[in-house]
Amino acid sequence: MHYGIAVFPQKHIQDLVNSYRKRYDPHYSLIPPHITLKEKFELSDDRLEDATKRLEEIAKQNKPFTIRFHKVSHFHPTSNTIYLAIKDSEPLKTLHSQINASFDPTELPYDYIPHLTIGQKMSEEELHDVYGTLRLRQFELETKIDRFHLMYQLENGSWSIYQTFLLNK
Amino acid sequence: MHYGIAVFPQKHIQDLVNSYRKRYDPHYSLIPPHITLKEKFELSDDRLEDATKRLEEIAKQNKPFTIRFHKVSHFHPTSNTIYLAIKDSEPLKTLHSQINASFDPTELPYDYIPHLTIGQKMSEEELHDVYGTLRLRQFELETKIDRFHLMYQLENGSWSIYQTFLLNK
Repeated sequence: MHYGIAVFPQKHIQDLVNSYRKRYDPHYSLIPPHITLKEKFELSDDRLEDATKRLEEIAKQNKPFTIRFHKVSHFHPTSNTIYLAIKDSEPLKTLHSQINASFDPTELPYDYIPHLTIGQKMSEEELHDVYGTLRLRQFELETKIDRFHLMYQLENGSWSIYQTFLLNK
Repeated sequence: MHYGIAVFPQKHIQDLVNSYRKRYDPHYSLIPPHITLKEKFELSDDRLEDATKRLEEIAKQNKPFTIRFHKVSHFHPTSNTIYLAIKDSEPLKTLHSQINASFDPTELPYDYIPHLTIGQKMSEEELHDVYGTLRLRQFELETKIDRFHLMYQLENGSWSIYQTFLLNK
């Protein structure tokens, strides 16, 4: 089965981001707005329980934190993705690295840059249009992160929840 | 904020049910296939933590169980909903009743019948057509239930996860 691990920002931010995603993100209806901690990976049923135990340990070792979104950025030309950039993203990088190390650690082909996608798989022209419009806008958004979630992917591409892991309060 | 509480059947059942929901359920892209334990309810932020503690207690008091889906049924004329009917649904009724009692207990206008919706808000004609086609089909589906989930609703009507509660293994 395919799994993924992500955090969700608080509701007011998900609502704002969805107002963009509705137009610019083909994954809009497959999963709510999220920051990926671990990209889609394969996990057999017999390894699931062990994996959740390791994730519980990691959650216990990390404290809740606050992140801020301050501007729009993009991954062009690596991918035609536009996202809200994150200030104070160190705790997300720590979670990512601990989680990644606890599975078969794979060499990622890129550095991990935590981000909140607002558009992806856009045409060149659309990307430049949208980024041109949004790049000067200042965002002052803040969200508490006190949990992460393990999800699995259904046949239709959408994501269903498996388990929440609460950071150590 | 609006919350809801549900269980999700195992993936193979979600995939099967989605093949029907795609055509017959306007909520198809808002939430994965689920059995509702508590319908949408309002909860203020200051009562959230207390609510999750009560849900943790309830989860601890209940053991994982298995349910079976054996046939298609409907709620017509109360509502134009078609669903997979559940055998051995007592543990779901217990969960529903404990959860409902732990919030401001509301008199429901109907008996709680745990079900897995495959179509809803259908026209009379569509309901009769689809039910006519599916009513004679035997289903032999079984799923383990060892957790339930608290979700909240976004502005666009979709549901985002708040927390998983594991039944007492």
